[in-house]
Amino acid sequence: MPSTTAASTVYDQLRTLKREAATIGSIEGLISWDQETYMPAGAAQARSEQMGLLARLGHERNTDPRLGELIGACESDSELMGDDRLAANIREMRRDYDLKTKLPSELVEELARVGSQAQEAWKGARKADDFKAFQPWLERMVTLTRRKAQCLSDGVELYDALLDEYEPGATAQQIEGVFTPLRERLSAFIQDIRQNGTPPDTAPLDTQIPATQQHAFGLRVLEALGFDLETGRLDVTTHPFCSGLAPGDTRLTTRYRDERFTDALYGTMHECGHGLYEQGLPKTPEFFGTPLSDSISLGIHESQSRMWENLVGRSRSFWVWALPIANACFDNALGAYTPDDMTRAVNTSTPSLIRVEADEGTYNLHVMLRFELERALISGDLGVEDVPGAWNERMKLMLGLDVPSNAKGCLQDVHWSFGLMGYFPTYTLGNLYASQFWEAIKRDIPDLEAGFEQGEFAPLLDWLRTNIHAHGRRYRAADLCEKVTGRPLSADPLMRHLESRIRPAYGLH
Amino acid sequence: MPSTTAASTVYDQLRTLKREAATIGSIEGLISWDQETYMPAGAAQARSEQMGLLARLGHERNTDPRLGELIGACESDSELMGDDRLAANIREMRRDYDLKTKLPSELVEELARVGSQAQEAWKGARKADDFKAFQPWLERMVTLTRRKAQCLSDGVELYDALLDEYEPGATAQQIEGVFTPLRERLSAFIQDIRQNGTPPDTAPLDTQIPATQQHAFGLRVLEALGFDLETGRLDVTTHPFCSGLAPGDTRLTTRYRDERFTDALYGTMHECGHGLYEQGLPKTPEFFGTPLSDSISLGIHESQSRMWENLVGRSRSFWVWALPIANACFDNALGAYTPDDMTRAVNTSTPSLIRVEADEGTYNLHVMLRFELERALISGDLGVEDVPGAWNERMKLMLGLDVPSNAKGCLQDVHWSFGLMGYFPTYTLGNLYASQFWEAIKRDIPDLEAGFEQGEFAPLLDWLRTNIHAHGRRYRAADLCEKVTGRPLSADPLMRHLESRIRPAYGLH
Repeated sequence: MPSTTAASTVYDQLRTLKREAATIGSIEGLISWDQETYMPAGAAQARSEQMGLLARLGHERNTDPRLGELIGACESDSELMGDDRLAANIREMRRDYDLKTKLPSELVEELARVGSQAQEAWKGARKADDFKAFQPWLERMVTLTRRKAQCLSDGVELYDALLDEYEPGATAQQIEGVFTPLRERLSAFIQDIRQNGTPPDTAPLDTQIPATQQHAFGLRVLEALGFDLETGRLDVTTHPFCSGLAPGDTRLTTRYRDERFTDALYGTMHECGHGLYEQGLPKTPEFFGTPLSDSISLGIHESQSRMWENLVGRSRSFWVWALPIANACFDNALGAYTPDDMTRAVNTSTPSLIRVEADEGTYNLHVMLRFELERALISGDLGVEDVPGAWNERMKLMLGLDVPSNAKGCLQDVHWSFGLMGYFPTYTLGNLYASQFWEAIKRDIPDLEAGFEQGEFAPLLDWLRTNIHAHGRRYRAADLCEKVTGRPLSADPLMRHLESRIRPAYGLH
Repeated sequence: MPSTTAASTVYDQLRTLKREAATIGSIEGLISWDQETYMPAGAAQARSEQMGLLARLGHERNTDPRLGELIGACESDSELMGDDRLAANIREMRRDYDLKTKLPSELVEELARVGSQAQEAWKGARKADDFKAFQPWLERMVTLTRRKAQCLSDGVELYDALLDEYEPGATAQQIEGVFTPLRERLSAFIQDIRQNGTPPDTAPLDTQIPATQQHAFGLRVLEALGFDLETGRLDVTTHPFCSGLAPGDTRLTTRYRDERFTDALYGTMHECGHGLYEQGLPKTPEFFGTPLSDSISLGIHESQSRMWENLVGRSRSFWVWALPIANACFDNALGAYTPDDMTRAVNTSTPSLIRVEADEGTYNLHVMLRFELERALISGDLGVEDVPGAWNERMKLMLGLDVPSNAKGCLQDVHWSFGLMGYFPTYTLGNLYASQFWEAIKRDIPDLEAGFEQGEFAPLLDWLRTNIHAHGRRYRAADLCEKVTGRPLSADPLMRHLESRIRPAYGLH
């Protein structure tokens, strides 16, 4: 870079490059959303060509050597780096650039190609309950993912390089330090509930509610929580998701079945939590395209979705407000129930085999099982052929269940088939962060839950906006946690939360 | 170009470049569709940034000097040019490249910038019925549009260069040769109807039909006409349109009001006609992105929409089939009417002031009025200040109406405000082509209308697929017309069609 260029100009050039890459990303986000919502089936081939072109245009910009030069010029500019926020922005741009340029493109392509085949093989193997058919594919994917980790690793544990992609700065050892006590306490807690508690009546959840009524209720809830429908939408897809695809454009999806209306409700509230985070990020012209307008990590993103879904949505105070609204939308179909009935019913906890169907109390054990196995796969301590045995052994130990088949065991998740390793722990990190933030929020806003009873969710959202959303990627997740809660991440708040919700539902004190 | 490169390789390189430009265009089409259908209002700013970026990326590719070189290399390859289809493909690529590179980019930008301001001025002027407020803007746009025509003109009439953008190869003089007799005969016909006919009973059209029922009926009609919903959709927008945005992705929109359900029906059938053309174009991997996969002209596109809307949709045989279906969808709301009642009601013709509300019988006079005025504006024979007078004089002459205000006169259309001159005649060309094709089709398929009564529209679609759609831009519109109808475009078929439909509705023979 010419040294005569003013710092602000170099930084502006950098922003312009990043902004263009982000705009391409926003178009990718939009056409992916369309693919899941309204695209005619016959357009699949053309869509993959569109996606391929945008991916190439985005990759060219994100790996442009000029981008590296501009970042370097900013890094050596002491005035710029003296501004904490801008320094964080440059630090994160360096991180992204290195991540995108460190992997050889043949490895990226091989991961994509083999991953796509392995995913197909996984589908067949799960259907046929045939682990042997999947085993060679999983072996190839573990090998390729290890190669990827080797390219990115800075020399400590290989798994950390994978984790870092989804949870920047986190390490397996730190996570283990929180997960191990959580695992022990959770297993004991679940056993206690099972042996000593009386399961609540879940009849309220069996009330049949037509999809149109559920949709009307869902929109009422979204609005009350503060999701801005002027800059967002709610649609229906097979697999619900949230896409904060562009400034002023955050789209949620959900799905409805006539039975178990709470599945759609909590699905919507979960995506709403992601959406509120996206709407709260500073995607202003000044920052859009730079890390300061981005979310911190998958764990923090998940903390937002889980907070609104579980901490808010399964509280008694939420149901005090929501039950009359639900009855207004549902022709009084829940007229026989009280907020206490609803709260107990939605805080049921029963060990089960399938992660995506697990309740709040048992969910994290499913995640920790996967974390332990994938970490051992990457380190080489576990061979792929030993996965089913290791899986089943841990299910017995952690959840007390016998696994009747690999289809309901180690073949149930798609993630590993396309190399998504280091991703699972972010689900539980999200739950941990949510509970720890929650305790800080309740200290700051003592009448928080009393407000919920009146439909007042704005104080919570304001707190999240100020303390979390507004920062973008300025802080790493662990640092943010210490900054806003005063202590490092711990298993205690999550255990306190689960006990406070599930024990009463089971008549325990 | 290196002369050692094999012709096929040069042609392949050309196809690859064109395909990438077309893929960018297909993404633009998709995000424009989203903007009209589902985009949250708050996303407007981000969307304009996305559109701007895609427009730039597309423009870069369409004006890439390498594209010009490759076209040149193909043109000088006698083997390639010996293949009629490929020669046509190269000829049209040359045309597109020249059109895109002949205009200085500052002129393109000035047209866009001033056009956008002039459009705002037009909105205000129409609302305030204040032509004087719009006059200076129209003067600027006429000046800029003349400059554009000068850049593109090959030296004959300046207006032809504008027309050529929308209707390649057409000239004002040729059009005048068809429009002049049409205008005289239409004016006389309308006067005859007015003086001697008895207006049909339009009560069937006043039946109130809920939008959901209209939508169900519209989908039944789309399917029967042959529109493939596996590679297409129907949505609702303020301004209905059809976007054949990518291979396998053709999207229609319509709008519903509870009264006048035929407005939505014919709107849907109109867009369906455009959509059937798009679905019939050979957008195969071999041709997608090249002119052989494109539509010929706006006039031919409009011939397809008007054929299904009017020639099919306002025929008695259509109503013989459609009325029971409509009654099944509408809870028998039209149970009191016969196919003859419906046919007469939808063939009413009454002079009116507003083009977009005009019926089939009077519509073309509105178009011809505009053609005459804009041609005179471009030649300089008409000054902008004289537009209102010239407009009102012609309305009296052609439609027998006094214009009460400029808002209902020369300020009614948006087109001129952003430089859309040379576009209006394509509406009437579409009607002319549709009627002339129709007579050829009825010669080829004598029992065409008997089939409609049974809901058999496939023979018509097959004919259009083979004779029109499959050719892409291989032929110019006038040549295609001679090829498939055996004679040059004439006013006779359209007059015969209108007389055969409207006279009986008015009790005349």
